[in-house]
Amino acid sequence: MARTTTTKRQILDAALELAATKGITGTTMDEVAERAGVAKGSLYYNFSSKDLLFEALLKERVGALAESLRRAKGERRGQEAIEALVAELLDVIAANSALAKLMAAEIFRTDRAWQETLFALRHEALAVFAEAIAEASGPADAGDADASTAAAGLRASAVFGAVLLAGLEWLVFEPERDRAEVAAAILATLRPA
Amino acid sequence: MARTTTTKRQILDAALELAATKGITGTTMDEVAERAGVAKGSLYYNFSSKDLLFEALLKERVGALAESLRRAKGERRGQEAIEALVAELLDVIAANSALAKLMAAEIFRTDRAWQETLFALRHEALAVFAEAIAEASGPADAGDADASTAAAGLRASAVFGAVLLAGLEWLVFEPERDRAEVAAAILATLRPA
Repeated sequence: MARTTTTKRQILDAALELAATKGITGTTMDEVAERAGVAKGSLYYNFSSKDLLFEALLKERVGALAESLRRAKGERRGQEAIEALVAELLDVIAANSALAKLMAAEIFRTDRAWQETLFALRHEALAVFAEAIAEASGPADAGDADASTAAAGLRASAVFGAVLLAGLEWLVFEPERDRAEVAAAILATLRPA
Repeated sequence: MARTTTTKRQILDAALELAATKGITGTTMDEVAERAGVAKGSLYYNFSSKDLLFEALLKERVGALAESLRRAKGERRGQEAIEALVAELLDVIAANSALAKLMAAEIFRTDRAWQETLFALRHEALAVFAEAIAEASGPADAGDADASTAAAGLRASAVFGAVLLAGLEWLVFEPERDRAEVAAAILATLRPA
């Protein structure tokens, strides 16, 4: 992000705000230029099309999310890792509900120009959860070991979905709660690792 | 749904298919008429605007989801109720991934004409999960009783989000798995009630 110029930054931020309310399809380049306070020429100089603009935005934000999740996990394992990841993802959602809404809307679209980029980044973000889950359910885990280890990807999606939807529920409908309460409610629904 | 005429049915189905790929904003009334195979006059006779069409669609589908969840829960309580709800929601998602994608994209939008209708229905669907969770964590539940009973709404969102995202992950990225495997992976991430 160090290399992002001020103009680029203003454009990307404006695009995110607009898309969170109106959707990507409903957002026009004219509106982005206006909201960012830049001339249209300057907008097109930085991003030659709406597709390229939103690809850059999602790349930047989902990439940053994957990185911050990886940092939050660090050397943690098992339940401690899951708790750190839940807290970090909630922080990201709280700091940027526009991004959270956009992710919920975009991660399963299959008709976007930037689909492959997003899939790769999405996979990277989920991989941190999958890793924590796989580490937790080692050979010691009897019972449903088949389902739990082979399906680490599905389980990572389940945990990610739990945090994403509860986090949005919090921000949109129950903003009076504090983050610790929300994290506790989410962890109360998850099986301890 | 018994009162829905054939033309209405064709229009609603076409609108859902289009919106799942292109988003609601990206879908035009012209495209709906073409995909449904009805004249534009007939489309507008049945739904005088795109907003009214999508409000009717979401009302019908989210309403049907709430009803089918309520039926699946029936007299079940605790873990049995949660398992029945997870299975039912997975069935709905598998039968209609277009609806699941649309729900993920729409449930937190706050700029839609049909917002209040959708919020009410969304609440109805989540209430069935919240009920099962609240029943399960009775006064017997010590430890984090505060978080778990007071926050039944957040916990319901978490469970719903877990099933929705893992369900979409399954359909979009791992369609070779069978439903039982997916249900097992989801239940392996949830704390038994």
